[in-house]
Amino acid sequence: MISNAAIDELAASLPGRVSTSPVDLTDYSRDQGPVVQTILPSAVIRAQSVEDVQALLGWATRHGVPVVSRGAGSGLSGGAHATTGSVILSLELMNRIVEINPVDETAVVEPGVINADLNAAVAEHGLMYAPDPASYRWSTIGGNVATNAGGLRCAKYGVTRDSVLALDVVLADGTLVSTGHRTFKGVAGYDLTALMTGSEGTLGVIVGITVRLRYLPRAVRTLAAFFDSFPAAAAGVLAIGRARVQPAILELLDGRTLEALDGAHGSDLRQRGGSLLLIRTDGFGAAAEAEAIRAALVGLGASVSDEGSEEADRLVDLRRHSRGDEVDDLYRVGEDVAVPKSQLVRYVAELEAMASRHDVRLKVVAHAGDGNLHPTFWVDRSEGERAQERLEEALDESVRCALDLGGTITGEHGVGQYKRRWLPWEQSPEILELQARVKQAFDPLGILNPGKAIVS
Amino acid sequence: MISNAAIDELAASLPGRVSTSPVDLTDYSRDQGPVVQTILPSAVIRAQSVEDVQALLGWATRHGVPVVSRGAGSGLSGGAHATTGSVILSLELMNRIVEINPVDETAVVEPGVINADLNAAVAEHGLMYAPDPASYRWSTIGGNVATNAGGLRCAKYGVTRDSVLALDVVLADGTLVSTGHRTFKGVAGYDLTALMTGSEGTLGVIVGITVRLRYLPRAVRTLAAFFDSFPAAAAGVLAIGRARVQPAILELLDGRTLEALDGAHGSDLRQRGGSLLLIRTDGFGAAAEAEAIRAALVGLGASVSDEGSEEADRLVDLRRHSRGDEVDDLYRVGEDVAVPKSQLVRYVAELEAMASRHDVRLKVVAHAGDGNLHPTFWVDRSEGERAQERLEEALDESVRCALDLGGTITGEHGVGQYKRRWLPWEQSPEILELQARVKQAFDPLGILNPGKAIVS
Ligand SMILES: Cc1cc2nc3c(=O)[nH]c(=O)nc-3n(C[C@H](O)[C@H](O)[C@H](O)COP(=O)(O)OP(=O)(O)OC[C@H]3O[C@@H](n4cnc5c(N)ncnc54)[C@H](O)[C@@H]3O)c2cc1C
Ligand SMILES: Cc1cc2nc3c(=O)[nH]c(=O)nc-3n(C[C@H](O)[C@H](O)[C@H](O)COP(=O)(O)OP(=O)(O)OC[C@H]3O[C@@H](n4cnc5c(N)ncnc54)[C@H](O)[C@@H]3O)c2cc1C
Repeated sequence: MISNAAIDELAASLPGRVSTSPVDLTDYSRDQGPVVQTILPSAVIRAQSVEDVQALLGWATRHGVPVVSRGAGSGLSGGAHATTGSVILSLELMNRIVEINPVDETAVVEPGVINADLNAAVAEHGLMYAPDPASYRWSTIGGNVATNAGGLRCAKYGVTRDSVLALDVVLADGTLVSTGHRTFKGVAGYDLTALMTGSEGTLGVIVGITVRLRYLPRAVRTLAAFFDSFPAAAAGVLAIGRARVQPAILELLDGRTLEALDGAHGSDLRQRGGSLLLIRTDGFGAAAEAEAIRAALVGLGASVSDEGSEEADRLVDLRRHSRGDEVDDLYRVGEDVAVPKSQLVRYVAELEAMASRHDVRLKVVAHAGDGNLHPTFWVDRSEGERAQERLEEALDESVRCALDLGGTITGEHGVGQYKRRWLPWEQSPEILELQARVKQAFDPLGILNPGKAIVS
Repeated sequence: MISNAAIDELAASLPGRVSTSPVDLTDYSRDQGPVVQTILPSAVIRAQSVEDVQALLGWATRHGVPVVSRGAGSGLSGGAHATTGSVILSLELMNRIVEINPVDETAVVEPGVINADLNAAVAEHGLMYAPDPASYRWSTIGGNVATNAGGLRCAKYGVTRDSVLALDVVLADGTLVSTGHRTFKGVAGYDLTALMTGSEGTLGVIVGITVRLRYLPRAVRTLAAFFDSFPAAAAGVLAIGRARVQPAILELLDGRTLEALDGAHGSDLRQRGGSLLLIRTDGFGAAAEAEAIRAALVGLGASVSDEGSEEADRLVDLRRHSRGDEVDDLYRVGEDVAVPKSQLVRYVAELEAMASRHDVRLKVVAHAGDGNLHPTFWVDRSEGERAQERLEEALDESVRCALDLGGTITGEHGVGQYKRRWLPWEQSPEILELQARVKQAFDPLGILNPGKAIVS
């Protein structure tokens, strides 16, 4: 554990930034992922500048203190959970948009900038920052980069990595480095920018981000397509692929999710179908693309919303800023597997079979254009431990099944703390060892978010 | 140097794969980049399987022999040049397309598959492999991945990294590992796939590649726009950006390049303008996008080809499979800088001033949509060493200027051997040191393509 003297030294060197108040320690102890064991940090540091971050890491190196970086704490894998003897480094106050360059089509931001704020600022220039996790109204660009966040639009526009050009990073010993380039293309040296992206705070602290912006589409078309069953809607996803049309957004909601929406909003979605596909096309070809998609889906027997339907737009917006779930805990866990597109229908059927076999409840939404599924399994709290065990079994089986079908344990949320037990199911000992060596090259003392992201 | 006994041991373990014939040693001693000093390899190994590659690397580890991987040898930075005491590992015979999955929209290939062959094979399924370096008719997918190759279509579809999902890699000690995932998205562990991409044979030998395919656009529109001057055409690039239209291809050719084309093909391009923009739009919005672009360029005084012009298509095809240059040597060097888009006009003007200041000749083509320029500087061979010095001065100055404008020393060709002298101009000592540590983590004995890609 850290001595009081060490904390005092830190507080003296970063006046006003260091809190040890019980409320802060509790509030910053966890993100939105399942908590297996509650651990409070020793302190919370709210950095206001790059120098603050450097000072903190210099201190942490001297005292051998683990540092957990944190954006908005919206993560779903426990990547920002406090660990034994750690301090939390919050980047939320470093939230300046440093530069928007409408001609270069780039922006430079501090890590604490909220995704939606950046998008609002660049929209004035006819631009957008494409990666839009459903948490875009509160998650930070720094957190998005650290998790390589996906989102709805990434079916067409790619994930966070595809929009990050350059990073300023404070290394474990407090050294500030710059990776990447301000240009769209660049291949000088190893791609450390891509390596940092998705490293979940284990290789360095991201303190500055240069992103590439995309053109805000002037035309947009939105379709809502109801199908009888969940597998039928999954087949609809394949039909769109066969038509070789690339939607910007392609989201799949199962019947249970429709029921939940009806419950929350008084709608009658579930009555209208057993599953829903939400599709958005954008750009100069939006209308033609929407027509091609409509034709493909009607051919499968779907009931597709009218051209210009306001409801379809409203449903996409609803989906765009909610996971549709409550916070996860030990009775309710949201998953994030991805499978090759050809396995979507099969996986969805397997999920339903699993849920009934283990007597757990199941709800699924999916970024279906990418084969990325978010099944949520839950059990009644009142049933106690035995129900938790059933939940764990269903979770393990759902992950194992995704891997058997050629998939991955995490499409976008990251391994964090919660999914480390599954990582060796996906990756060979040699890959785990290589990753440990990369970690060692960046963070020889192992003070950056230990116990997260990789297994060593 | 390697002993004859060691070579004999290798030849015995890989019968029929190992050549020490003078013709092979010469043919495989270099790629298309400038040769500063000719060095012959000790042997050329043409691997036919993953096991061959593993056996070679096991041997190289035991004997401490440097291994230079090689695809088609079309590289422009000397990345595949032989170095002292090295052997060349050619992957050209490992050229099987292992799998095409039209539903998953993926393909699995061996490293020696030619880019154009993969594209021909997937076109039958309405798909394309997007990254298309102008060398696509002879460069290999393995070489494309090892250099993170760009190309013409990457203005819209991204570079090689954006299309690579998973890699099979033989590490320095002969261990085979698999990185990445077959799904479009995946964030389990560090992004070793992206780290390998662009590592120029210094971190491992790529022996299998899973790529993501894109939809072959059904509609395509092509425009050729002649401008009075090179800076005017560069301004045209910015006008297309301001119109917020994303072309698939946006290539810029200067007057000297037009003269060279006229000389080779008997055309009259140079008469029609001092510079040419070639633009292709594709997809459902192709026609509307082309119209928006035409309007923007006509507004600048450009003379734009008619709708459906066959000449425009022919010119793009010409550009698509030629660099328009001869092989580089010490009297003629092609560059590959990139600058932020806003600096295009200024950089182009600076280049012209530099060429006349140093009395060297200059020709420029550019993947202008990405700000990636290929100036070629040359001097008369007959002028001898003094002219070479002038050439070097102009080259150094052009690189320094690109960096001053916020650019990079290499947009797509890689650092290889030739550009290492410029790498410390772009990257800080700390970044160079980090890269050396990553290299050390992968290749502790330093046998993989030493003296390339990074500086340590
Ligand atoms: C309702 C809801 C919807 C969601 N939808 C999506 C979705 O569609 N797609 C998706 O990908 N995710 C989604 N998520 C998950 C989450 O929002 C993302 O992972 C997001 O990128 C996390 O950002 P954050 O700022 O909250 O980071 P945090 O949760 O604070 O941190 C996440 C990880 O990044 C590290 N980190 C944070 N900032 C830095 C930094 N500056 N430097 C180094 N490391 C850092 C942390 O240590 C931690 O490991 C959703 C979450 C919720 C609650
Ligand atoms: C006419 C012409 C036009 C060109 N146009 C473009 C362009 O538009 N865009 C662009 O990016 N480049 C372009 N290039 C450069 C070149 O074609 C690319 O760099 C290409 O990717 C090299 O592929 P290759 O198979 O020839 O690789 P090689 O030249 O054989 O090797 C390139 C590098 O990769 C390494 N390597 C090769 N295969 C492997 C492997 N399997 N495992 C590990 N390392 C490996 C080598 O050691 C070397 O460092 C052009 C070249 C020419 C001659």
